[in-house]
Amino acid sequence: MKKQLTPQTLLYPVPVVLVSCGGLAGPKNIVTLAWAGVVNSTPPMVGIGVRPSRYSHELISQTGEFVVNIPRADQLKAVEVCGSTSGRTSDKFAATGLTAVPAQKVKAPLIAECPVNLECRVQQVVKLPSHDLFLAEIVAVHADETVLDARGRIDPAKARPLAYCNGQYWQCAPLK
Amino acid sequence: MKKQLTPQTLLYPVPVVLVSCGGLAGPKNIVTLAWAGVVNSTPPMVGIGVRPSRYSHELISQTGEFVVNIPRADQLKAVEVCGSTSGRTSDKFAATGLTAVPAQKVKAPLIAECPVNLECRVQQVVKLPSHDLFLAEIVAVHADETVLDARGRIDPAKARPLAYCNGQYWQCAPLK
Repeated sequence: MKKQLTPQTLLYPVPVVLVSCGGLAGPKNIVTLAWAGVVNSTPPMVGIGVRPSRYSHELISQTGEFVVNIPRADQLKAVEVCGSTSGRTSDKFAATGLTAVPAQKVKAPLIAECPVNLECRVQQVVKLPSHDLFLAEIVAVHADETVLDARGRIDPAKARPLAYCNGQYWQCAPLK
Repeated sequence: MKKQLTPQTLLYPVPVVLVSCGGLAGPKNIVTLAWAGVVNSTPPMVGIGVRPSRYSHELISQTGEFVVNIPRADQLKAVEVCGSTSGRTSDKFAATGLTAVPAQKVKAPLIAECPVNLECRVQQVVKLPSHDLFLAEIVAVHADETVLDARGRIDPAKARPLAYCNGQYWQCAPLK
């Protein structure tokens, strides 16, 4: 028996990512996002929805670049810190102990501790009612050897990613 | 130790959904998509990336409406059928045994067997190099009572959704 619910952002699972932005030497920030997805295959592109009030929105708008860092489930504490404080008033790298390291093609830093990092360059910004949607090309990809299988693909049992649904954190696992 | 990989659509997890489109009585189709995500909170909006060559692209462009149906992991067979055949030459409802039932606010049919259905109305189409990104408001939501917890939220242990990463199907589970 189906129930009708209030229209809400109920799509699941959606990814839980730490987006780093700014520059390695200058102002930089990390923001936790779940409004993220793949939008195009050739070239590979992602879209991320960011509220205009966010400090990261300001940094990404200035630089046109960001990095999507994909955490493991055991990094949930850092995910929660980066999702509940503002980079305007606190240094989230210091607050979480995460390490900013140089990217290859963009000025925004990679987060060393996250097993996968996608360097992204903004191509287009679509203004939506509550969020701006940054559409960006993935220009470089880094993956830790410890999360890859023998064929060089991400192994979910090793990468152990988080997923988000309707206010709850979930985890992903191999399909049995 | 990090390895650098070819730029690719490596964001994970991304949702696995069956998008139904067309009309209940006339031409209708189901397409499996993983290029889907939440793009806006207020009002709730999703974005889906669809290749212009797809039959579903034609139907969604004509009607400006679609339904995002979220399958359970045990519906993987139907997901594979709807992702590997074209609705131009086969009736995917007949091929999968899935049932088209009336939606509340859009003409596109709901898939009865999927535990969650999001009725969507297109607001904007963004042309990207290989895909068109349909940005749509979620105007009605249906959820089967069997996948809700006591507080009326989706229970991952009951909804058992699929997730997609880099060519592989994964599953989601509660965070331990």
